[in-house]
Amino acid sequence: MPTISFIPSGKSVSVPAGTGLLEALRSAGFQIPTACGSKGLCGKCRVRVLSGEAPADSRQSACLGQSCIDQGWRAACVATVAGDMVIEDPGRADGKGVVLTDFVGREPRGDSGLWTMDVTLPEPSTGDQTDDASRLTAALAHSETHGTFSLSLRLLRSLPGLLRENRFQCRVVGLGDDILALERPGMVGGGIGLALDIGTTTLAAALCDLRTGAVLSVASGINPQSRHGDDVVTRTDYASLGEKELAEMQTLAIDALSGLCRQAMNAAGAKEGPLLVTAAGNTTMSHFFLGIPPDAMAVSPFIPAFRDEYIVSGREIGWSGPPPDPLVYVLPAVSAYVGGDIIAGLLAHDKTLAGGAVLFLDVGTNGEMALAVDGKILACATAAGPAFEGARIAQGMRAEPGAIARISLSHGGRLEAEVVDGAPARGLCGTGLLDAVAVLLGAGLIDQTGRLLDPDEARDADPALPADLLVRIHEGDGGTALWLVRPGEHKSAGVALSQRDIREFQLAKGAIAAGARVLLELAGIKPSGLEAVLLAGGFGNYLDPRSALAAGLIPPGVEPGRIRSVGNAALAGSRLCLLSRDERESAESLARWVEYIELSGRADFQAAFAEEMLFGRDGE
Amino acid sequence: MPTISFIPSGKSVSVPAGTGLLEALRSAGFQIPTACGSKGLCGKCRVRVLSGEAPADSRQSACLGQSCIDQGWRAACVATVAGDMVIEDPGRADGKGVVLTDFVGREPRGDSGLWTMDVTLPEPSTGDQTDDASRLTAALAHSETHGTFSLSLRLLRSLPGLLRENRFQCRVVGLGDDILALERPGMVGGGIGLALDIGTTTLAAALCDLRTGAVLSVASGINPQSRHGDDVVTRTDYASLGEKELAEMQTLAIDALSGLCRQAMNAAGAKEGPLLVTAAGNTTMSHFFLGIPPDAMAVSPFIPAFRDEYIVSGREIGWSGPPPDPLVYVLPAVSAYVGGDIIAGLLAHDKTLAGGAVLFLDVGTNGEMALAVDGKILACATAAGPAFEGARIAQGMRAEPGAIARISLSHGGRLEAEVVDGAPARGLCGTGLLDAVAVLLGAGLIDQTGRLLDPDEARDADPALPADLLVRIHEGDGGTALWLVRPGEHKSAGVALSQRDIREFQLAKGAIAAGARVLLELAGIKPSGLEAVLLAGGFGNYLDPRSALAAGLIPPGVEPGRIRSVGNAALAGSRLCLLSRDERESAESLARWVEYIELSGRADFQAAFAEEMLFGRDGE
Repeated sequence: MPTISFIPSGKSVSVPAGTGLLEALRSAGFQIPTACGSKGLCGKCRVRVLSGEAPADSRQSACLGQSCIDQGWRAACVATVAGDMVIEDPGRADGKGVVLTDFVGREPRGDSGLWTMDVTLPEPSTGDQTDDASRLTAALAHSETHGTFSLSLRLLRSLPGLLRENRFQCRVVGLGDDILALERPGMVGGGIGLALDIGTTTLAAALCDLRTGAVLSVASGINPQSRHGDDVVTRTDYASLGEKELAEMQTLAIDALSGLCRQAMNAAGAKEGPLLVTAAGNTTMSHFFLGIPPDAMAVSPFIPAFRDEYIVSGREIGWSGPPPDPLVYVLPAVSAYVGGDIIAGLLAHDKTLAGGAVLFLDVGTNGEMALAVDGKILACATAAGPAFEGARIAQGMRAEPGAIARISLSHGGRLEAEVVDGAPARGLCGTGLLDAVAVLLGAGLIDQTGRLLDPDEARDADPALPADLLVRIHEGDGGTALWLVRPGEHKSAGVALSQRDIREFQLAKGAIAAGARVLLELAGIKPSGLEAVLLAGGFGNYLDPRSALAAGLIPPGVEPGRIRSVGNAALAGSRLCLLSRDERESAESLARWVEYIELSGRADFQAAFAEEMLFGRDGE
Repeated sequence: MPTISFIPSGKSVSVPAGTGLLEALRSAGFQIPTACGSKGLCGKCRVRVLSGEAPADSRQSACLGQSCIDQGWRAACVATVAGDMVIEDPGRADGKGVVLTDFVGREPRGDSGLWTMDVTLPEPSTGDQTDDASRLTAALAHSETHGTFSLSLRLLRSLPGLLRENRFQCRVVGLGDDILALERPGMVGGGIGLALDIGTTTLAAALCDLRTGAVLSVASGINPQSRHGDDVVTRTDYASLGEKELAEMQTLAIDALSGLCRQAMNAAGAKEGPLLVTAAGNTTMSHFFLGIPPDAMAVSPFIPAFRDEYIVSGREIGWSGPPPDPLVYVLPAVSAYVGGDIIAGLLAHDKTLAGGAVLFLDVGTNGEMALAVDGKILACATAAGPAFEGARIAQGMRAEPGAIARISLSHGGRLEAEVVDGAPARGLCGTGLLDAVAVLLGAGLIDQTGRLLDPDEARDADPALPADLLVRIHEGDGGTALWLVRPGEHKSAGVALSQRDIREFQLAKGAIAAGARVLLELAGIKPSGLEAVLLAGGFGNYLDPRSALAAGLIPPGVEPGRIRSVGNAALAGSRLCLLSRDERESAESLARWVEYIELSGRADFQAAFAEEMLFGRDGE
């Protein structure tokens, strides 16, 4: 069987000849994105073959372009394994360090609603043949602190053995009127919960102590649904093929999240699984999580099957984390494109929102935003597309080792690139893209319409233009292009930004800026009147606010000092809901309170979008 | 591969040499009882090998006795298949005609609680992006007839497609505040329910129209759990081996009952499965049905894990009948040995119970009884054992073809046997056993202590004794015996009643009669004061009341005209619960109302038992 070796990780995998290369990479544990659904169109699944047999057929060159092919790149989805190969590690297999799990935010209000009670039941005799369940609920009722209880089938199954092994003593753990766990007397366990952030691209989990609120460990990974498309619409198309495909999407997410649960438990040395799981995700992710068809959200008028919070047992959705079977709380959503993740983020920052006009912006695979002002919250979503997550950008990639994350112009006029982990530069992530555009705009190499000047035009426009910039401009597969890292620099085969990439950037930033503009205009607020702009999500966390202002992603006029990154706000809010009943109720109130503005079909949005695609608009 | 052929059915099955004979019989579709749990002890799994290789080793003769071996009988559980064989059909494969599904009883009080509503929802637009679930529940709330609703995950999954395929019209079927089904507008379906009687030995199902109450079809079969023992204690022993064994017991029952559901649907031409299933079973059967360990019921002080009614979704217990996933209602029990089946029976006859002192007697695998008098209901259970179902009687069998069901003495002094279906006599079922004992008592061949006289004693005792009786007495494996059917008669190899069988009968009838006596004495009622004796279950239905009185199974002194068979009362009561919410509430009240009398350890019961094992006690 041919063996594929990976460099520098040293991994290897053997597969039968004829196996699809994509399948082989996945079996080696690599998460490979395929934005187009493995049709040889998007090129996101490309890997660099350093040696071995890798025929470059016409599908390969049509997908990647001849210059990529010459450098050894191949689109894995249309390649098959013919013999031994050595391949450059296609990103990190575990998504580690790539997924943002840090968050800032407040501590929960109210208590968790969790209670623990040690009960000693009267031992049965022929004079007292009360059944076990009634014996237990009578003891709880006598405590006078709680109402009526019912036992789930799972707990009822465990009750007879537990009581008889422990002389009719046990510890009961409950949440409100629900009995969540029955344990041996004196067991300390049973106080663990898991907060989830289910992103389109990334998954994050925080294992928390339900009593103290402490985060015991976090785990994260790539959403394996990405094999069926980078964005929610492509995945919805796949899931709408049939029940099998929909079930597959659910299983992919649940299995990955259950795996994160195990990872987080190992890291924390936890012996028992969570009693409660809270799940914050965009509305499509929540539908997939519960196995509900999201089809009607993909077409106008964009209707979700459900929006309210939903509570199920883990068993019902195939949760396969360690026992016990948790209660699972799915956060409520506002609409098809303003989901539980946004509610979670707003919840985590509701104190800030209450302090004046505040814009909350989450640029993930979509661009969702909310504007809080005068006790109202307006929200909208824009189809920004996943450009900032590396998709649709020729050399775009996630913020993994090898990704250019920062671009700056030195005082000496040299273009300088920072690469994640100092690895050989092999692509460009969202923050690098934003910086690149901002620097080139500043240098006058991109004009107001977004056109990248050719060398002659550039020289004419500004004779003082640093030579280091001029020599980087060249003709590439996507029209005029500029080497951000020239071949040979940073041990790289070169990373370029093309005219086509700039157009993709314009579409994405134009959509987001136009959405923000519509909200501001509806609220009668000028950008300078914003008390704060909160940036949520991985891209928002790491971007350079000056670049975001320079490129017009954040409305010009906002005070740079008022722009704050808040990390993984969805995870922060998911944790709050995990820790407190009051917070869950707050999330439910927020979801009803937020006023959703549907942008599609709005003339003011269309006009703003057309303008915001351009650069250099005046803010006020 | 050796082939086993069956006569007269003509069935055949091929299995690898070395396969256990029991396994081979089951793979041919025969339900073979094994009271001892396949340990070669009880001999209930014996089959008659007409030709072929069937070595008679020492385990065979230890189990069945040499005379049986000589006639070709083999215990299947300790036999292996060595070559081709021809075997006499071991009973009917499907249990058809063997299980009592007839019942008498009243029609339900109150309505079913079932409602149907056709709703037309406002079609969504970009101006009304309400989610599907809220759209539906708002429409139901507008109707002002119902409260708040939540949709199960299953229904939520079906909702988007259903609405969009039917222009936002649908038919909602609910039960109280539960939405049970969502259907196409105008669909008539969705009005079907299934009442179950889960017996230790037999299973019965009645498919009913939830609106009219009509019984559309019935189906029945043998409880396949019987492969792990005839009585609840043996099965509990098996299930207590581990989780796998407990799960197996649940699966055996659920799969068989789901199969009866399909059978009943086919018979009725029903397209959709039941919305609601009600399950009446003894407490152990209810535990197995839900997968709950019944262990603590098998030992003193006999504690069930639960007693109250329990409601689950079919999915939670592995129900595999046709969709939809039904709501499953398990009837409440009184104690470990007075279960939901007795509650169901009492419910079905509560009018009679209210009319004076009434004894309700269910002689199944156990003997359970209740005495209603002056607004009180006392109940008890006796470990009668399954003698009346054919177990522990040397030639005992169920009331299948070939079973002697009636024994009488003609005016001419000839012993006459009626055989089920007129087939060659091959055994003795409960009613035949009862008749035989009554006839022999009447003839003076069994004395008051239960001793079967030998021919000399008999002649001495009554010189006028018919010669036909005398010649039937012989020495058999179980001591003195009497041919009920002599070898050669009824194309039979002979069916005998032995001294040992009479002892088993005495134990069973003694336990039941003693239980009844304790209840009567506690209530201060004489047997002649009983307004009615209701006999439930298959044995109770078919027995000859005169024999029951003569043998002392029913307390002497009861007016024979007041003894009434009520058929499968558990199924009747299960149906009432299926059809009406009020009836379910009545069942729950009954379960709390019934006063359970624990007989074990009671001195009065022990004394009564010792006396009632004898024959000829005076009634008053």
